[in-house]
Order: sequence, then structure tokens, then C-alpha cells
Amino acid sequence: MKYFQCDYVEGCHPKILQKLIESNLEQTPGYGTDRYSETARKKIQIACGNPEAQVHFLVGGTQTNLTVIASILRPWQGVLSAETGHINCHETGAIEAAGHKVLALPSTDGTITGEQVHKYCQEHFESGIKEHTIQPGMVYISHPTENGTLYTKAQLTELKKACDTYHLPLFIDGARLGYGLTSPDSGLTLKDIAQLSDIFYIGGTKCGAMFGEAVVIPNPGLVKDFRYMIKQRGGMLAKGRLLGIQFDTLFTDGLYFEICEKAVKQALTIREAFAKKGIPLYGKSCTNQQFVVLNGEQLDKLGKKYAYEVWGPNGDGNTIVRFCTSWATQDEDVESLIGDIQEL
Amino acid sequence: MKYFQCDYVEGCHPKILQKLIESNLEQTPGYGTDRYSETARKKIQIACGNPEAQVHFLVGGTQTNLTVIASILRPWQGVLSAETGHINCHETGAIEAAGHKVLALPSTDGTITGEQVHKYCQEHFESGIKEHTIQPGMVYISHPTENGTLYTKAQLTELKKACDTYHLPLFIDGARLGYGLTSPDSGLTLKDIAQLSDIFYIGGTKCGAMFGEAVVIPNPGLVKDFRYMIKQRGGMLAKGRLLGIQFDTLFTDGLYFEICEKAVKQALTIREAFAKKGIPLYGKSCTNQQFVVLNGEQLDKLGKKYAYEVWGPNGDGNTIVRFCTSWATQDEDVESLIGDIQEL
Amino acid sequence: MKYFQCDYVEGCHPKILQKLIESNLEQTPGYGTDRYSETARKKIQIACGNPEAQVHFLVGGTQTNLTVIASILRPWQGVLSAETGHINCHETGAIEAAGHKVLALPSTDGTITGEQVHKYCQEHFESGIKEHTIQPGMVYISHPTENGTLYTKAQLTELKKACDTYHLPLFIDGARLGYGLTSPDSGLTLKDIAQLSDIFYIGGTKCGAMFGEAVVIPNPGLVKDFRYMIKQRGGMLAKGRLLGIQFDTLFTDGLYFEICEKAVKQALTIREAFAKKGIPLYGKSCTNQQFVVLNGEQLDKLGKKYAYEVWGPNGDGNTIVRFCTSWATQDEDVESLIGDIQEL
Amino acid sequence: MKYFQCDYVEGCHPKILQKLIESNLEQTPGYGTDRYSETARKKIQIACGNPEAQVHFLVGGTQTNLTVIASILRPWQGVLSAETGHINCHETGAIEAAGHKVLALPSTDGTITGEQVHKYCQEHFESGIKEHTIQPGMVYISHPTENGTLYTKAQLTELKKACDTYHLPLFIDGARLGYGLTSPDSGLTLKDIAQLSDIFYIGGTKCGAMFGEAVVIPNPGLVKDFRYMIKQRGGMLAKGRLLGIQFDTLFTDGLYFEICEKAVKQALTIREAFAKKGIPLYGKSCTNQQFVVLNGEQLDKLGKKYAYEVWGPNGDGNTIVRFCTSWATQDEDVESLIGDIQEL
Repeated sequence: MKYFQCDYVEGCHPKILQKLIESNLEQTPGYGTDRYSETARKKIQIACGNPEAQVHFLVGGTQTNLTVIASILRPWQGVLSAETGHINCHETGAIEAAGHKVLALPSTDGTITGEQVHKYCQEHFESGIKEHTIQPGMVYISHPTENGTLYTKAQLTELKKACDTYHLPLFIDGARLGYGLTSPDSGLTLKDIAQLSDIFYIGGTKCGAMFGEAVVIPNPGLVKDFRYMIKQRGGMLAKGRLLGIQFDTLFTDGLYFEICEKAVKQALTIREAFAKKGIPLYGKSCTNQQFVVLNGEQLDKLGKKYAYEVWGPNGDGNTIVRFCTSWATQDEDVESLIGDIQEL
Repeated sequence: MKYFQCDYVEGCHPKILQKLIESNLEQTPGYGTDRYSETARKKIQIACGNPEAQVHFLVGGTQTNLTVIASILRPWQGVLSAETGHINCHETGAIEAAGHKVLALPSTDGTITGEQVHKYCQEHFESGIKEHTIQPGMVYISHPTENGTLYTKAQLTELKKACDTYHLPLFIDGARLGYGLTSPDSGLTLKDIAQLSDIFYIGGTKCGAMFGEAVVIPNPGLVKDFRYMIKQRGGMLAKGRLLGIQFDTLFTDGLYFEICEKAVKQALTIREAFAKKGIPLYGKSCTNQQFVVLNGEQLDKLGKKYAYEVWGPNGDGNTIVRFCTSWATQDEDVESLIGDIQEL
Repeated sequence: MKYFQCDYVEGCHPKILQKLIESNLEQTPGYGTDRYSETARKKIQIACGNPEAQVHFLVGGTQTNLTVIASILRPWQGVLSAETGHINCHETGAIEAAGHKVLALPSTDGTITGEQVHKYCQEHFESGIKEHTIQPGMVYISHPTENGTLYTKAQLTELKKACDTYHLPLFIDGARLGYGLTSPDSGLTLKDIAQLSDIFYIGGTKCGAMFGEAVVIPNPGLVKDFRYMIKQRGGMLAKGRLLGIQFDTLFTDGLYFEICEKAVKQALTIREAFAKKGIPLYGKSCTNQQFVVLNGEQLDKLGKKYAYEVWGPNGDGNTIVRFCTSWATQDEDVESLIGDIQEL
Repeated sequence: MKYFQCDYVEGCHPKILQKLIESNLEQTPGYGTDRYSETARKKIQIACGNPEAQVHFLVGGTQTNLTVIASILRPWQGVLSAETGHINCHETGAIEAAGHKVLALPSTDGTITGEQVHKYCQEHFESGIKEHTIQPGMVYISHPTENGTLYTKAQLTELKKACDTYHLPLFIDGARLGYGLTSPDSGLTLKDIAQLSDIFYIGGTKCGAMFGEAVVIPNPGLVKDFRYMIKQRGGMLAKGRLLGIQFDTLFTDGLYFEICEKAVKQALTIREAFAKKGIPLYGKSCTNQQFVVLNGEQLDKLGKKYAYEVWGPNGDGNTIVRFCTSWATQDEDVESLIGDIQEL
């Protein structure tokens, strides 16, 4: 069985493993105060084009989302998100458990627009009974989205403008950021992300690391005392150098971008194979996640050799299915899959 | 500089590293549903003498404490703990952030007694205005304690009895459990721990793993739906097999106990060296943490070659200092330290 | 200006005021342990046909909703509600601030069905990744709903059955319960409510009292320690007898039902007047709230003499408007309004 | 039986009752936007000597404390308080339920000092591992304290200075403020309170009102959006004018001060009677609460005619007991009590 159902089925990139092996018995202070974390922070600042940016390392995505959001919002505020956003659907109410409502905006492709934010805020702040409803306090998006789609630079700029109008920090969940930035359709660089958001994270877990997410705060004044929050919410790793080593490696010689780009290319060849075969694509993902609509027979045939993720019913008796590649996907497995798609 | 200030300055035991290397490109499902996690759970059940026990893997100690406690208490309940307990002192209010007060009981050596619990509960439940105060809802202890001390079997039995009288689950924080169970002073086995508590965790981070804590729930009815809580509080590792691999290795051929026992022996030789030199010991730790009282000159001398942790002022102008060993401590470093103690 | 915009613009029913005057200098113990609260509880138990029911008095509706819901749910659970439910729309995220997501179900008239609950729960509990999403833990409805509509006995029975299937307590927000039970369309008595729900409250604020809501728990085992929760969430009135006196009076000689019935009759005559005039009614309210669609000219004309509540745009350029009656509405004001409707 | 055990055993001052009767059928908008609330706010601003101060009305003390504290603190912050503070002892963990630890400072008479605050903050902010512990975020005191004692102007000034040094807002719980300001020992006026604190409340429940507390925020920038918080935490009374009417009356012609002063005088005559009789006084209260140490025989004799509150054992076999007066205490009852004290 070859696994295409998600992008976290293997361990980590061999270069990271090598670094972990080499440093294993070295003694370093804890909680992210070690030299590896320090150099990793520096390299990320440089990659973001912002030497003043704060960089913090956390262990996983849900943890990062809840820690960031709870550190920014006041108790009477909520976070605007696409209704399909990860925080709204797949984090077991982590944001609500931290006291905040996710204010869900309709979305068909995973993105939201500046206009939606503008309209929501306008209605709220002009309402006579606004204190009877939750105040919008920040905006959450993911890039790429849950659907594998990307914001254009124009869209992100417009969204940031709407956020600025209402003084809402813009938070970008970059669990799969590498796969977005290296997509041929990407109009955004890491520096753009750092300029067009108030806080974001660079995903490691799905992009080559064993685990780990790097939170970047371009304007360090936004969240004072973030280390208190990381510790309180359980995200401060005792052996913090494990995170430092991983991100240091990923941001040495462009490894992060190199391995993500390869995965995106693989995904797009799979996409092309489905398209050529006349199998309907679902959505317009140009990143490492590809969604297609399969009938029962196709599901069975491919299911014998490949693990995929069932995304949901398509409404016509067929099924939407996700195929993911990752930094670890083998070319031969992709070729095998494409061959079997052609045979369908 | 040789580090004795804590027990998390290195990576992980070489056998674990080897397993991580071997399995690195293997594909497994996520979130702890993989085969490594499964066998690790089984081995821990066997080691605990309880095949029905639930076993869950989390990443770190603060995360584990908050997830366990928040999954048990109702909103109007608090957790009884020694005033020196980790949850009361060193977790940035993680328990309060989850909505619960830590009900601190006085303690000079890190332990609390059944009598203290009994008295606290009796006063609460017999009070006419009890609903104006927080209801005690569970009891938290650490074994070994923050001070490196141990509960005897009689003490733990008495504590459990008091808990049972008031229907309070007893939770044991075992961040350093291995160093407790392998102390020559230990009157408790892992099976005893599993019988005399309602929920506990076996610490990995400080006992040979890169990271990870294994929560054991001897009576699976105690916390239904614990996986929801792990996910919600950010403790569910995407690549859960990393935790499974580590605990599987630690619980193969008694590795966990073997490496902890060695560290305790090293610590006791350091203790002996201080005692012989006439340097005052602080407390009665018989585990891998040793506390001594040093004067300024001694601090300086040892500080040139060894990192130790300043525990606090002793009140007489001298300073209480902690020296820790761990599974990774080298015999030659211990010998060097002992030599320098003799030279003081 | 005559106020029809809501049902809380006056003080309290004169009989209650009289009782407050008579008892003013009497000395009673605090926090609801007084004799008035005791007799009020007894009268409510009798009215509910359940001498075992627990009865607690709180001050206001949002407070009651948050206290009840937070006392029942576990941290990983949410509450199912119509998307139009008060807890979802008009309580500033009070439920989320207590840590729980409101799981909103679509509704056009304010009600939800047993089938909706069944489907939601089935999908959740059969999902392979259910611990990544919030577990449904209880069901909230209001009766009458926000839209003034009522559940039939069959609908409520079906809803309760679905709740029982999944062990979800059913909570009825009865902020306007009196206006529902005394509607000519009501197929439900107070005893039915007490039998077909697990916890509910009898609204006082909008039904004759100065303030106050009476929570009834037919099965006292459902929420042990509810008084702790009331105190913790700020709902335990020091001079609890103020609540006791009010509910004692309302449940003496059927006053609660008598005054609510009168208000409903007034509302239905207003409804009839709009209907006769050919002005579109919005929804099928048969209680004290009436919704109509007015054009700009009509809004202006009526707005000169009457305060009404703007409910929202109708989508066709016209406006949905709410007219409320209450126990305090004067017949002459109703007649005046009807006259002016006829003049439109 | 005459009640001296607390100061909330009667309804409200007759002038308030009269106003409630007169206004009962008047129609006003809800949630504190009515004209009574408006004039009450103005009168309080004038009494505080600060026309810019924000004034908000809430229903009860615990509710007020939790709403104020939760509106100021960030998630990783706690509130410094005397260990005897109401928020630490008698509010069922309301502050912890809002996510914050009460950082208890030792106190023998109910007060804390600027020096204590200074020392606590200095130790925290200079600590190398400060993010592992809760950050002090504000200071809570009550005036009078739980023990009936008062801060001098010098003490309060020193405390405020320490707060300012560390940018901690100073919050004064004034549940019994009237009894403090009118004590012959008081060196503080209401204007002083408004100048020497960042937020405080003027207690109504125990000082003449049926219920209600008036929060004053001298610097309106301190808590933006406070009305959202009041609503969310269940403290926004639908018929807000009930609060407005009560405080409007209390702050007309100095009624608040007049009635509290009388109660304090009564209390001091009781104190004097105990002192003359040679019965030990407990503490130095010069307000409406008096604490004395009674033996078993004295408890029995007085207990036959008077309700008092048992404060706790004195450690010598005798019992500390509290006698309270209030705005409603009758002179004849005080005389009767004094007579019976003389007979002991």
C-alpha cells in the first residue's frame, strides 16, 4: 500500500535526521534558548526579510493556532475564518476552549475576501446592540487553504487592507506554507507573507520536519509575552533544540523550498493524469493536495494499491477524494499511480 | 562546561535514535493509530500489570498535566496539590487557564499526606457555605516530588484511601517516575503505582526519550473521550508514531528502568561525595536530583566547570543548588565532579 | 411614545411590587435559603407536577444559559442549537467564553427537529476522526423560539427521543415560556415541558418579574452541585429572597399564566389587524411577539407613535419589524396601535 | 431573633423602594441606556470628582469582581490579592474559572502593602524563568477589607505607587465602600479612591440597595469595550433602569453616606460595649463589621436572641464571631444587644 492520503506519514527529511544524530549527545540549555534555535531564528528572519521579526517554535498546528489566537484576542472577541477553516472544523473546539468563537464566513474554495471582512465588521461596529454580539478581533486564513487553493497577491493585499481598516491582526496558518510558496501558481514569496500579515507560521510537520511550526511575528509589539503563552498552553518543548535543529536545517541552502517544490510538481502530474483521463477535478488546487471525483469502481481499483483520503460525497453518488504528495513522496510511487489512473 | 543543572540537556537514548532512523521512511497512519504506538501501549499495559489500562501518548509534561486535570474536573472543582507542586509553581497558570484553582497544601519535602486530604475535604464538605468555595475534585502528586523525595507504599496507600473516601481521583505526575522506581529507597513498583492511583503518567522527556509522556488510566471508565481532550489541548502529535517508537523502545527489555537506575546511582555517589566533604545536604532526595547548600566560594569554584541549578537562598547567606544526573550522564563527568567536590 | 419593541420596558407586576414592599424590612438569610425561596420552589414543583424537581433562581437569561450549559458539558463537548438561537446570536459569545462551541443547525422558523439532531450525532459518532471535531453534548432550544414560534407536543417528543438516543440532555430556554404555554396554539403544558426536557427555565424577566429566571431540573441527578456553579458564575443573588418573592407571587393563583395569556391575546389582535390590512406577516408566531413586513412609509408613520424593533431587511426593500406585548401592555395602547394600523 | 450576622438581610432603603414604586410602569429602554442610569452615572461622576470617569452598573459582587478582572488581565497574568481576599476565598474560584490565578499575598489584617507588591513583581520580572510562572497583571484590594479594616491614605498611595511602577492596574472592591468612607478612622474620601485606583466599585447590595454595584473607571482608556464583557459574563440587567434608579437615589442628597455612617456608629457602640465588658476584640475594625472572641457560654447566651456569624476558632477554645450592622439596623436592636452584652 502506498500512502497518498496525507502529508505526514513518514518521519523527517534525511538531512534533519542527520543533524539530530550528530547533535544527540550535545548538551544545550532548554526551552528554546539553545544555539540551534538561535541560528534557526536568524535564518528565518533573513528568509522573511525582516531582522526584527520575532520567531518562536511550537510543536504542532492545533497548538500553534490556539496559542496564537488566544494570545491576541480579548475575551469578548472572536476570530473571522472561512467556514472551512481548520480552526472551525478540525481542532475539536480548541479555539472555543480558549474562550473565543470562530466567526465563520461562507467560502466555496477555502478563501475569504477583504470585502467579506469589511462587510462583517461594518455591520458589527455600526450595530446599535453590538455589545450583545461577539466583536471581530482578528482574521484567520490558511495559505494554502484546506482546499489546496492559494491567495493571489492582490487578494491578500485587499484582505490586509480590510483588516487594517478595523485594526484586526491578520494571522496566516501556514501548515503547508512551503507547498504554497513553491507552487507555479504562487504570486507570493515568503517576504510577501511577512509583509502582508501580522503573524503567521511556517509549517514544519507537513513540510519535511518530524514536527514543529515556526511562528513569525513581523511586528514584535503585537504579542508581548508570547513565551508565557507558549509555556501555559503546553507548547514549550523542554528540549527546544529539537525544534531549532529542524528549522535550522530546513532554512539552510533553501532546503525547505526545494523539497516542497518537488512535492508540488509531483502533485501536479497526478492532477494532469486525472484530467487527461477525463476524471473530474474538485476545485482548483495547484499545491500538494489534489482533489478528484471518483465513482465506486474507481475508488475500489485505486484503493487496492493506494491510500487516499475520502473528502466527502460529491452529491451525485460519486465521492470526492484527496491525494497528497509530500517532501517524502517517491517518484516511482507517483509513476505507478499515474499508470493506474491511465488504466481506469 | 558539564551540565548537571537538569535532566533534559541531551537528545535521546541511542537505541531510540536507532529506531527512529530505521523507521524514518516507513509510512504509517497518524495521531497514534500506528503499529508502534499500538505495541508501545501493550508493553506498558504489561509493565503495569493491567491489560485493561488505557495508555495515551502526549508530548510534554505541562501539556499532560493540564490535559489530564481538565479532563477530570468539573468547572467548580479544584485540584489539591503540595504548594511546591509543579502545577502550582512552574506551569504559568496552565491549570487556572483551564479554569481550575490549584488548592495548595503545605509541604516541606514535596509530599502531602492522606490526613491533609482528609482534613481539607472534611472541612469543605461539612461547611455550611461550601458552595461559596471551590470543591476539591482530585488530588495531584508527583513521584518523585519536585524535591526528589519519594512516597513510601504506606504513605501512598493512606493517600489513596483518603482520596477514595471523598471520591477524588488520584493523579500521579511521573515526569521522573523512572528515577523514583529505581531508587534504592523505593518501596513502590510500577504495578503498585498503577494500583494505587487513578491516573498517572510515565515520563519520557527526562528519562531517555527526546520527548513524550505516557498517560496510563488503570480504570478506563475514569476519562471517557480522552482523545478529544488531547486533540483539543494541542497534544495530539500528527506523526504519533514518534511517541510510539520511543516508548516501545523504552519498554523493551527493561531499558527504561536500566537507564534510570544508572542515573540514580550516579546521583547518589555525588550525594555521598558532598556528605563526606561535610557540605550540607538539602532534603532527603534519593533519586537523580541532589540538593546541597553551597557557600559563595564553593559556588564559584564548581561553577567554573559545572552547570548546576540555583534552587534558592538557604536563608543563612548560602545557596541551595541542584545537581541532576540523567540517563545520559557520563561516568567520567561524575568522577570529575566528585574529584572537584573533594578539592573544595 | 408607546413601547412595543420588547417585553422588558416596565418594572414588575403590581402584586410582586406589593410583596416586595410588605417584606422589605423583614430579615432573612441570604443566597436563596430564605422562606420565600423555599415556598416558591415548592409552588413551582407542584406546577411542574414533579415534587422531586430541583428549582434554582438566577437573575437573567444569558447568565442562566451560560450557567446551565457550562454545568452540563464536558470541555470537549458543544451544544446543538438552531442557528438563530439566542446563545448563538445575542449573548456575546457567553457559551464560548465558558469554553464550548455552539453547534448551529439550520432553521428557518427558530425550531430544530429530532431528525436534525439524529443526523448530526450519527455523522459525528460514526466518523473515523470524530475526536478531531467537537462532540455534541446537549441540545438547546427556546420555547417559544426567537421567532415567536412553538414546538408541538409531537415535535418536542421526537426531539427528546433523538436526544435520549445519544444521551444528550435537552435544555429549554423558557425566557418567554409563559407566552408560549398560554398561546391558543400551544399543545404543551408546563407539566409536559417538565417531562419532555432534562432541564429548563421559567422566564421571569419578560413575564411579570423585575428580573429572575427559575431553573427547573426534573431529574436532580443531572446536575449535582449546581449551586456551586451559580455562585461561581456570578448568579447567586445575596438577597436571594428577592427572587423567591417574585416567583412565589407569580406562582400563586396562576398569576404567571393569567398575565401572559392576556399579553398573547393582545398580540394576536395586533397580528389580526396587520393581516386584515394586507400587511405581510413574517413567520407564524402565535405568541407575544409579532413580526410584520413594513415599507418605508409605514415604518415612518407607525414610528412616530410606537417604538418597535427592526428585525432586519426583508430582501425586497422592505423591513421586518417586531411588535411585542407583555404582561404590562395597556389595552388602550393596543387599541390605539390597531387604529393606526387601519389608517396605514 | 435579631440578625447581626451580615449586612444583606433586609430589602432596600425606603427611598429606593419609593422610587421603584413611582417608576414601575414607566417605559424605558433596556440594558442601562435609560434616563435613570444616565443621571445615576452623572451623579457618581460628580461624587468622584471626575466627569470623564466611566460608570457601569452590575448586579452583584462576585459578578463584578470576575467581570472587571477578566476584562483587564491577559491570559498569562494573575491578580495579586491578600490571601484573605474575597476573590481568593469566597467566590468558588470565579477568577480561576475566568482563567486567572489569584496570586495570594500573606496578610494578617486583610490589607497588603506597596512593599509586598514591589517585592513580588521585582522577583518575578527579574527571574530568568519568569515565563514559567504567572505574570502579575493587576492588584486587587478591598476597602474596607474582609476584616473590616481600612487603608490609610499613605498606605493606599504607597500601594498605588508600587502598582504604577510595574504598570499594574489597582482595583478596589468596594462592596462595603460606604462603611469605609464614613468611618471616623477614614482618611480617604470617594474622590481619593477615584484618584488612587484605576478601577473600583461602589457597593450597593450591602449599602442600602436591593442589589447592584457601580463600577467606576477613572481612566476610560483602561477597559475599552467593558459593556461587551458585562453582557458576556451575564451581568447586563435587561431592566437596567432598576440599577440606575437605585444608584440615582443613593447618590441624591448624600443618602449613601448618611445611611452608611449611621451603621458604622451603631457598630462602634457595639464594639465599645464588648470592650468595656472585657471581651476580647479580634482585629481593629472601625467599620460596620465587628469581630469579638466569645466563649461557649457567651455564644449560647447571645445566640438565643441574636444571629451572628461564626468567623472561626480562635485557637484557644474560644470562637471568633462577627456582628454586622447595616443601613437597616434598628437602634432599638443595637440597644438591646448592648444591654445583653453588659449582662454577660
